[in-house]
This record gives sequence, C-alpha cells and structure tokens, in this order.
Amino acid sequence: MSASAERRDRLRAAARAAGLDAVLVSRLVNVRYLTGFTGSNGALLVPADADRPEVLCTDGRYTVQAGEQAPDVELLIERTSAVALAERSAKDGYRTLGIETHDVTVDLQAALAEAAGGELVSVKRAVEHLRAVKDDTEVALLREACAVADRALAELIAAGGLGPGRTEREIGRELDARMLDHGADAPSFETIVATGPNSAIPHHRPAERELAAGDFVKLDFGAEYGGYHSDMTRTFVLGRPADWQREIYDLVHTAQAAGRAALRIGAEVRSIDAAARDVIAGAGRADQFGHGLGHGVGLEIHEAPALSPLGAGTLVDRMAVTVEPGVYLPGRGGVRIEDTLVVRDGAEPELLTLSSKDLTVL
Amino acid sequence: MSASAERRDRLRAAARAAGLDAVLVSRLVNVRYLTGFTGSNGALLVPADADRPEVLCTDGRYTVQAGEQAPDVELLIERTSAVALAERSAKDGYRTLGIETHDVTVDLQAALAEAAGGELVSVKRAVEHLRAVKDDTEVALLREACAVADRALAELIAAGGLGPGRTEREIGRELDARMLDHGADAPSFETIVATGPNSAIPHHRPAERELAAGDFVKLDFGAEYGGYHSDMTRTFVLGRPADWQREIYDLVHTAQAAGRAALRIGAEVRSIDAAARDVIAGAGRADQFGHGLGHGVGLEIHEAPALSPLGAGTLVDRMAVTVEPGVYLPGRGGVRIEDTLVVRDGAEPELLTLSSKDLTVL
Repeated sequence: MSASAERRDRLRAAARAAGLDAVLVSRLVNVRYLTGFTGSNGALLVPADADRPEVLCTDGRYTVQAGEQAPDVELLIERTSAVALAERSAKDGYRTLGIETHDVTVDLQAALAEAAGGELVSVKRAVEHLRAVKDDTEVALLREACAVADRALAELIAAGGLGPGRTEREIGRELDARMLDHGADAPSFETIVATGPNSAIPHHRPAERELAAGDFVKLDFGAEYGGYHSDMTRTFVLGRPADWQREIYDLVHTAQAAGRAALRIGAEVRSIDAAARDVIAGAGRADQFGHGLGHGVGLEIHEAPALSPLGAGTLVDRMAVTVEPGVYLPGRGGVRIEDTLVVRDGAEPELLTLSSKDLTVL
Repeated sequence: MSASAERRDRLRAAARAAGLDAVLVSRLVNVRYLTGFTGSNGALLVPADADRPEVLCTDGRYTVQAGEQAPDVELLIERTSAVALAERSAKDGYRTLGIETHDVTVDLQAALAEAAGGELVSVKRAVEHLRAVKDDTEVALLREACAVADRALAELIAAGGLGPGRTEREIGRELDARMLDHGADAPSFETIVATGPNSAIPHHRPAERELAAGDFVKLDFGAEYGGYHSDMTRTFVLGRPADWQREIYDLVHTAQAAGRAALRIGAEVRSIDAAARDVIAGAGRADQFGHGLGHGVGLEIHEAPALSPLGAGTLVDRMAVTVEPGVYLPGRGGVRIEDTLVVRDGAEPELLTLSSKDLTVL
C-alpha cells in the first residue's frame, strides 16, 4: 500500500468515527498529502467505506500528471473540481459529507450544498491533524530538505559569501541559488538575511545594507524539497564579538538547547515553549523574545503543532517541529537559533538541521 | 488625495449603492490595493459614510509598517484582524456589513457573524471589480514591471544565454536572476522555459533538457515590481526554422496581432478571444489552441477580465490584459506569443511588453 493510500485509510477511520459517509477534501495541500497530486486545481472524495471509489478531480491540464501521480484513485476531469465531486457524492448516495470549513469559502459552500444534496458537516482540520504526525516517506523528504539547506550554508561560508561589503540581498540570492543547485524546488520562504541592527527585526526583508565588522548576521532560511520544507536559523558575528553579543548569543544558545531537551512525547506544547522561555526570562530578557518557540513543519512551512504560550495539546511520536528562540535588542541587534527536529518515541529527537550552532566568528 | 484613498472612495460608492453600512475587506491583495499595506495579516473596514473612520487592522509585527504604508487610515492592532473589525463594526453601530464571501471561509464567517451582530451581506467581488480598471499609479508600476522583463530578456539573448547545450532550468534561473538584478521583487510566477517538444506543453516546468539545433524555445515569464505583475511570452528558434515551424509561428503571430487589434473599449471580451481564435481556426488548427486568449493582470497575475470563450462583459478604459494565443503540436513543438497591454480610450492599446515579436533565429 502506498504512503498516500495509508493516509487515506487514516482519514477514512476519522470519517467513520465522525459518522460521515464521505469526506470532500478541497484544500490543495491536503489533496497532495492524500494522493501525491501536485497540480494547482484539484479536490478529492474519500468515502468512509473502503470498498467505494476514491475520486480525484482536476481539469484537463492535469489529466496525464494526475494519472501518473495518483494511479490508485479514480480520476474525474472537471474544471469545478470540488463542486463536481459534491455532485459525485450525491450520485454515489452519500448523505453526510464532510467538508473543510476552514478552507471552503462561503460562496463555494453554497455551490457544494446545492450539488451535494445531503448534509454538509465540518471535518474541522482532520487532514491537518493527520499531517502533524509524519510517516517515513515524509521524514526522509524533510531530512533531505534540511540537508540541502545545510550544504548551501556550508558552501556560502566556505566561499567567503559572508564577507564585509556584501549586501543582505546578495547574500540571500546566493543562498537561494546554492539551495537550488543542491536540488531544492524553491526556497521554503523568502530567505531572511538581517545584518547589524537589522538582526533585531525578527522577520527583516533583505535590503541593500552592507555587511560590516562587528555585525550580527542572522540567516533564517530553508529549502523546499519534494514538497517538504526545512527551516533553520543561524546567527554569526563578523569579526570579534562584543561582550553584549556574546552574552545574548550564549543565552539564546542555552535556551534553544533547553527547548530541544523538552521535546518529549506527551509533553504539553506550552511546556516546551516555557522550557526555553524561562531561560531567557531568568536573564531578565523576557520582553526581548516576542514570538513563539516553534511550529510544526512539513508540506507547509507553518503547520500543527504550535509550540507557543497559546498552543494546546501534547507532542506525539514523529511530529516535526522547529525550535527557535531569539533575543532582540531594538536598534542594536538580535540572535535567533533554529533547528528542525523530529520527535522520536523513547529516544532523543532527531536533529535534521546539522549546521553548527557554536558561536561562529566570520 | 492618495491613490489608495481614491480607491476607497470608489468602494464607498459601491457600498452605498448596495445599501451597506460598511464593507469588511479581508482578502489581503484587496487590503493592499485599498491601503498600500503589504503585511501578511490584515483586514480593512470601509464605512459607506466618508465621515466615519476607516480602520486597518493587523498584528503587532506590522505596527510600524502599517503606519508608514497606510498613514491615512486608523490603525487597530489585533491578531484576529477580520474578527476584530467585525467587533469594531458593531461598536460603530453598522447594521449591514458587506463581506467578501469569495474569500471568507465558512469558519471565519461564523466568527464574523458572532462578532458583528448585524447582517452580513456578500459584496460579491466588488474590490476585484474596481481593480480591473487601473489608475495612473498602477499603470506606471505595470509599465516598469514589463520593462524589467524586457531588459532581462534582451540581456539573456545578448549574453548567449539561449545557446545550444544550456538546460531549461539554467535558462530559467538566469532569466529570474536578471529580473532581480533590474529591481524585480520576484518573478511574477514560476518562469516557463519549454524547449523542443516540451514547447508543445502550454505550462511546462523547466527541466534538465538541453537546447539543441532546430528547437523551439518558448519563454513565458514576468517580473513582479511594486506588487504588479508583468506577463510575456516569446518563442524563438535555435538555428534555421523548418517549414512547419515557420508556418505555425506566422499563424500565431497573425492571430496575436488580430487579438491586439480587437482590444477596443466596449468590445465583448469573447469577441476579442474570437478575433484571434478565428485566425487559428481558419488555418484548421482550432484544436491546437486549447486555452483562453488572455486575462487581466495587476496585483495578481490572473485577474479580471478573462478574455476567453467563456468570459463575460466588455472592455473598459484602462483595463490591463494579456493577449497570448498559441498553437501546440504534441510531441513536436509549440508557439505562444504574449503581450501585456493597457486598453486606452480613443487610442491604440498601450503595449507594455516591447520585446520584438518577429521570428528570431538564435
């Protein structure tokens, strides 16, 4: 059984538990997860009964591609994908159809209701819930996505790419190009290169500022590989670090290690955030760490679970998450250190981003 | 009055005409259009009464940015942006609130209904409707977005970038890099480089195929500049064109000119599609042109109006559209020629993509 067929089986079980006859999956990233199909238009009908046909619907541009990527489901070619599958649901006699109300717009729901006839029920985030726990196929892709980012960074540094006079934009473009050279489909998100005072801005966009002696250089980037996203932040110093730089670097480094150490199955996601946050608060810098500790990562760069003070739930075996505390001193500079890891039953979490986290002086 | 303030005035007029007390704009690209704000979380409340406050809501990451980009509206900082503005709508006493039902999810609508108290009414695609007609600020940005793409292509050719042995991927990356060098924020979309038989695939993704003598080389690409997208396709031949290549090139060239000539104010969008399609059908190749003639372009790469057999409505002064017929011979090769143009009252449409459309032999 293919990985995606096993995923559909798990969704089927959730559908049965919720008393649904079938689920209409309209969110594209979820369609990809459940079938492997990567086109820009598509929806999937998954009946609760394993003997009934699973149907993928897309338009004529993707007939060949859908057949290749999702050979084990029935294919329907119709431009209105989700609406066509609601009609199909009626034809197949399903009376209670689950829909993704966090994705379906009000207008689409009206069209689905007309086409489906029966009752539409929210599946909540059933597929996102499944996606939070990664299977072997997914972990392998995440591992490679992280390796691509590691290689690109190592090369950038070895080639002197972080030398004085280089602009943030140049560095960002070189890092992106090196990730593409190593097989990335694309950068995971717009690469963050934040130097000097800009490093105090958590999500700074690369600009024309030139690297100069004494600067922090904060790189937050990742590679998309086979649809999966890596996410890593490293912060360097150009030249001899000042005392304040060493101090906040060591603090963030310690907090990040505490966050990683807290990644245990069954741990409350809030307690993981707290494990790192307490270190920073203990140094009197609580207000200089203004974001959550981390997030799930996979087919999306941000997905469940949220490791934050507002997060809910506990860690489960094979969740993939980032751990990324930071300390930011407005107008001066900031440090963030971030890894991507997979939680493992009865073992240390598997660290996927392997670049050194020791204070590196360029 | 700023360009965005004038746009809000037009939305206000539409709200009054529809009997709404206020409009809650939740679609981010529409928020950008109406305020200039470019953050990744935001919503906007536009009352029908010009004397009541217009309120932009975003979260704390964007406090400074929102203040700079949208200085002429009130700023509310709240993570739940749209829901917070629905509460504000209730507080300001609005009873009938327009919402974007083509964008608002079922779940969000439920939260808005609870927060707003009063009646929620669809504004249909009111903002998209306004956006179809470009103001001077927008035309200037589109012009520059097209110029960036023109410059990148000219350089690519001059530098021998389309020589034998180069792969589609290499060509795509060089074109993207040259657009970034000329100030693009990003490519408008994933650049299409389709060579040899691949040129028969309308939306081929660049792969490892190497350019060889006798190939068609089809490049479909554009630059995003200040949020606006250019879109251009050119097809070249590497070496001496074969008769069949010359034949379909000339046919598409003639059809494209016919499509451009049909861009007149008041023309039905279907008739513009037909003007080009008839040329191709007249050569017995109707079934080798399987997509619409063109589309509106602006803050999105595809927006209103659709110039297609299924399109509805007529051209209005200052609409920006693409004209892009193609002929595709599966397994052999294909040609598409595409320009971005602005429709002008009492004049020829303004051609924004200026690269030559004559058959260019590399």
